[in-house]
Amino acid sequence: MKLRPVILPLLAALLGGGAVRADEGMWLYSAPPREQIKKKYGFDVADAWLEHLMKSSVRFNSGGSGSFVSGDGLVITNHHVGLDALQKFSSTEKNYVRDGFYAKTDAEEIKCVDLELNVLQSIEDVTLRVNAAIPAGVTGNDAALARRKIFAEIEKESTDKTGLRSDVVTLYQGGAYHLYRYKKYTDVRLVFAPEQQAAFYGGDPDNFEYPRYDLDICIFRAYENNVAVKPAHFLKWSEKGAADGELTFVSGHPGNTSRLLTVPELEYTRDSALPYTDAVLKRREVLLSAWAARSEENFRRAREDLFSIQNSRKVRDGHLAALQDPVFFGAKVTAETNFKKQLADRPDGKDALAAFDRIADAQKIIAGIAPRLRLLENGAGFVSDSFTVARQLLRAGDERPKPNGERLREYSEARRESFEQQLFSDKPVYTDLEILMLSDSLTFFVEQLGATDPVVQQVLAGKSPRARAAELITTTQVREVAFRKQLYEGGSAAVAAAKDPMIELARLVDPEARALRKTNEAQTEIKQQAQAIIGKARFAIEGTGNYPDATFTLRLSYGPVLGYEENGQKIPAHTTIAGLYERSEKQHNKEPFDLPPRWIAKKSALDLSTPYNFVSTADIIGGNSGSPIVNKAAEFVGIIFDGNIQSLSGDFGYEDVQARALSVASPGILEALRKVYEVPTLANELVNGHR
Amino acid sequence: MKLRPVILPLLAALLGGGAVRADEGMWLYSAPPREQIKKKYGFDVADAWLEHLMKSSVRFNSGGSGSFVSGDGLVITNHHVGLDALQKFSSTEKNYVRDGFYAKTDAEEIKCVDLELNVLQSIEDVTLRVNAAIPAGVTGNDAALARRKIFAEIEKESTDKTGLRSDVVTLYQGGAYHLYRYKKYTDVRLVFAPEQQAAFYGGDPDNFEYPRYDLDICIFRAYENNVAVKPAHFLKWSEKGAADGELTFVSGHPGNTSRLLTVPELEYTRDSALPYTDAVLKRREVLLSAWAARSEENFRRAREDLFSIQNSRKVRDGHLAALQDPVFFGAKVTAETNFKKQLADRPDGKDALAAFDRIADAQKIIAGIAPRLRLLENGAGFVSDSFTVARQLLRAGDERPKPNGERLREYSEARRESFEQQLFSDKPVYTDLEILMLSDSLTFFVEQLGATDPVVQQVLAGKSPRARAAELITTTQVREVAFRKQLYEGGSAAVAAAKDPMIELARLVDPEARALRKTNEAQTEIKQQAQAIIGKARFAIEGTGNYPDATFTLRLSYGPVLGYEENGQKIPAHTTIAGLYERSEKQHNKEPFDLPPRWIAKKSALDLSTPYNFVSTADIIGGNSGSPIVNKAAEFVGIIFDGNIQSLSGDFGYEDVQARALSVASPGILEALRKVYEVPTLANELVNGHR
Repeated sequence: MKLRPVILPLLAALLGGGAVRADEGMWLYSAPPREQIKKKYGFDVADAWLEHLMKSSVRFNSGGSGSFVSGDGLVITNHHVGLDALQKFSSTEKNYVRDGFYAKTDAEEIKCVDLELNVLQSIEDVTLRVNAAIPAGVTGNDAALARRKIFAEIEKESTDKTGLRSDVVTLYQGGAYHLYRYKKYTDVRLVFAPEQQAAFYGGDPDNFEYPRYDLDICIFRAYENNVAVKPAHFLKWSEKGAADGELTFVSGHPGNTSRLLTVPELEYTRDSALPYTDAVLKRREVLLSAWAARSEENFRRAREDLFSIQNSRKVRDGHLAALQDPVFFGAKVTAETNFKKQLADRPDGKDALAAFDRIADAQKIIAGIAPRLRLLENGAGFVSDSFTVARQLLRAGDERPKPNGERLREYSEARRESFEQQLFSDKPVYTDLEILMLSDSLTFFVEQLGATDPVVQQVLAGKSPRARAAELITTTQVREVAFRKQLYEGGSAAVAAAKDPMIELARLVDPEARALRKTNEAQTEIKQQAQAIIGKARFAIEGTGNYPDATFTLRLSYGPVLGYEENGQKIPAHTTIAGLYERSEKQHNKEPFDLPPRWIAKKSALDLSTPYNFVSTADIIGGNSGSPIVNKAAEFVGIIFDGNIQSLSGDFGYEDVQARALSVASPGILEALRKVYEVPTLANELVNGHR
Repeated sequence: MKLRPVILPLLAALLGGGAVRADEGMWLYSAPPREQIKKKYGFDVADAWLEHLMKSSVRFNSGGSGSFVSGDGLVITNHHVGLDALQKFSSTEKNYVRDGFYAKTDAEEIKCVDLELNVLQSIEDVTLRVNAAIPAGVTGNDAALARRKIFAEIEKESTDKTGLRSDVVTLYQGGAYHLYRYKKYTDVRLVFAPEQQAAFYGGDPDNFEYPRYDLDICIFRAYENNVAVKPAHFLKWSEKGAADGELTFVSGHPGNTSRLLTVPELEYTRDSALPYTDAVLKRREVLLSAWAARSEENFRRAREDLFSIQNSRKVRDGHLAALQDPVFFGAKVTAETNFKKQLADRPDGKDALAAFDRIADAQKIIAGIAPRLRLLENGAGFVSDSFTVARQLLRAGDERPKPNGERLREYSEARRESFEQQLFSDKPVYTDLEILMLSDSLTFFVEQLGATDPVVQQVLAGKSPRARAAELITTTQVREVAFRKQLYEGGSAAVAAAKDPMIELARLVDPEARALRKTNEAQTEIKQQAQAIIGKARFAIEGTGNYPDATFTLRLSYGPVLGYEENGQKIPAHTTIAGLYERSEKQHNKEPFDLPPRWIAKKSALDLSTPYNFVSTADIIGGNSGSPIVNKAAEFVGIIFDGNIQSLSGDFGYEDVQARALSVASPGILEALRKVYEVPTLANELVNGHR
């Protein structure tokens, strides 16, 4: 699941008075939806059950979830969550991403470079203490500073006392503050990974689709003091997995959601932001695909960008589909109307109602400047690494002499190290690809602003977009690291003296770009402060009877294993291993539907009827990748690895007609480990819960 | 060359007073640019030389050019011009498109189903007679009717007298009318075709690109009375081909150009029409590519649409690049300004100046209605065969009872036969592809008009674009031919009674769609009449000292064999056969860079240094495909098959910095025939000029 989420409010809450739809929600472990689950499924969410699940759940700092699945410290997550670690110790000779990996002995396990795992131990409500630290009447930056101070104080106190990682988390848009304490593991070693071709079977074409046939798993072992961890809690492996219709739970770390956007913000997203981004992505996808098709070398150069664009494009299409659905959008409108009515009935509701108006006003201003902001400040008119670097040099020269607090944020002292690391990186930049991208974005720039716009005419300098792009890219020196260092160290005088054509282009558009950004940031700040006021009012009405937007903290979701209908066709909940072979056969084993050699060789050994992937109605989002999915007995029945295309609506609200969470089934994992990878020791450890 | 051109005026003319740039022009054979060629190249275009070239040149009614290349009736054209004929007698067993074809004997030659070749015999100026037939003061439809009548009279008279096909051609936007007389050949037989993989080597990725390695040829033989034609004129084959820098001539049938569009029309094309079409094409390309990647069957279903979209997208990108070039566009503006000055100085110039104003006014109205017209009338909001058919049924019911002259033109008696043939065609329509396309176009519809537009809300009927598309496609009956026949025959009452959901959708948008179309057609008519007035004024000033826009009639272009520079890199004029093998090797012989087996087997037999493709500065456009390119001795040195991406500017004006015409070189053709295809008889006939 390669979701890049957005920001804000609960559909549930918007529906008014905490009335939550069936199976909706990414619930706090401190406020689980006991009543709903009891009512609908007759199941009691017991405290011990919750604690066991919580302490078996793992957060990956690389941006995903996982779980302990053996008493000897095995942690399972998705292959695409482990990929970052895998890539760091792969080489041309040892291509673990392509070929997979298995450590037959402890000694063969490979230690990950910078992976950190967190296991939540406790949640404490610190709202009163945080709010008390902000003097009455203090708002804006002063309030933010005071808040940051009390956060740091609470966190340090907790760490000193418990030795645990301690984070204060802002929930309900500032309606509540909770202290999360984690046990931390930094010695994490790779035990097993399948070939990427098995993990991400079907590649981009099947990404966000269902039915699926992916073995998207990766298994690590956590260590402390060079000894495998013996966690107090780990999930028992279910050999039979989950049946159709069975209630399941997902325990993981959803990254963020935008379920509390106000209607004017949603309208802007639906009518302007998404159509714009979508068109830009499609334009760039066509550009890169066509260019990549011309040679293998082109393909190699464009590959990573192309895959990332295709993934983003699917996500945006999914978001747009949700917001263009009159039922989905209508529910948002109704909910906001109802909530405003509730506010109107309360003596303290006036402030929140006024905050709604401020958001609408700010959104209008943002919409007005968006077309030029996207092109000039966000750089959609000048897409190329060369322009990015040129502007960084220009702005670094202008910003660095200023006091730290007055700089554009990317030039602050706190970000200096990573900024310089990036600026002086000698990653390969290809002239041909640079010209291609810049030509196309200049073309787009002219299309958007019109050929007669004065800025357009200055930027083109009397040339066509293609000729101007070729000229800029071939004459600029910014792709030389030594040149960059020299200008960075020499400051604005050196930058000006260089008269580099790309830097001069950045200079030409800089006054307007900065002005647009300033307006945008001011209006965004107004919106954020207004949202906090609304958040508090909402929390005052609903309390923890509802779930807050996702914050990459541990949440509980639930729902049955359930198929769905699409275009009049029934999509069953489960796929089997047989389906994998059928899909490959139908595609004549052509990339990305080709099977790894090991899978071809071992076919006859497999029980092809074994469940492989399945879907459920659990409410998940990016960050849930690798989350365990468990049954009522808290047994591991599978692992979340994706959502279908319809589930992309999840950014803005929950839907259970077609939206589904995708998991790899526990029996399919076992079958593959035993018969394809022939690693019985590992399979037995999972089943027995120990070595 | 798969160009789909547009409409109108000469950059040259616009530059004022017939000052034509070097090598520019698609010249009339009746008014060749003798002076320019003499001055620049010291070559005399003699009458006999011209006549020889004219009578050796062939027009293909399937939309291309060719030439006689033997005294025994051999006609050479492009593979992609002959493709239509090839497909008509190919089958699963005899796949001539894939495998190629060679007739060892006359008896093995295959007769084409409906191919007609035309060879121009004479040109006669009939301007005075045409103008005399239009009574003074008569304009608009009445003038058009009178013109059509005199055309028919002249054509019939000529055919009766000469037995030749006789066409009156409107030139210079109505500034002149010429009678073209052709010898006609309808018995045309296939002699040779290479594999499509050799002819269209590199497929879409290399389409409109250079360097290239295509054997884009197809050889026919013309017959009369079952005997091979012995043409009085045919081109002598040059075994050595054309050298770098050598002056060459192209004799062919350019389809149409838009070089006389006024500045407001060009601005509209640059700022609105092209960016819109381009975005729609890219959006659809992404949609179909992503869907096609999901399975081989999807790919098969989407393949043809996808290729056509990719080709169109390249063309539009090329057009936009030309119009966004300030130099190119600036020249258009200057030329129009200068021409208007000339008009202002003439007593009869007032009408033409007023005509310019009428075009500008009409263009403004057209621009204003374009967004809704594209979606509602042109159907961009409802892309699917089902919608097209539904609307045809609806409108046929409404239109057919009207008098013929008052109907929408596609429902006129003259078009009835082909309309019915199309309406009742049982070509396969795929439900899944229909849902895909309609979902996406409804999404686009909402994006463009906004979710709150009343028509949008009526169209969606409370559903999301995806759900609505699925509902419409799965419930409509219009994909059943019997249903179509029943409704067509039953007329509007039967159509209304059917209550078919897709037809009802067409009905819902029909009033507005018709109103938009009416406005658009009225304004277009105003523009056309104004253009004719300007055309006459221009012709009065320039006469045949300039060339008219292309009209799919025989024209002469010229220019040297010449490489060019791109992104600072020199692109040589010629490629060699060695380059073909290198390109294939670099791409690991992967589709579409794979070589046909015959080419792999025969590599060692070939002289790899033989010239294969080359570029020249000749002014060509779609329709020139298959044109002979000859040297000063009128010898065949190659055959035009494409233009590079920069040459796509040719629709609007000539450019010789980077724009190039692409040809297959005569030595490369011979080498392939002799050593790859081992057809010495055919090769010898070409070289000897007879069997």
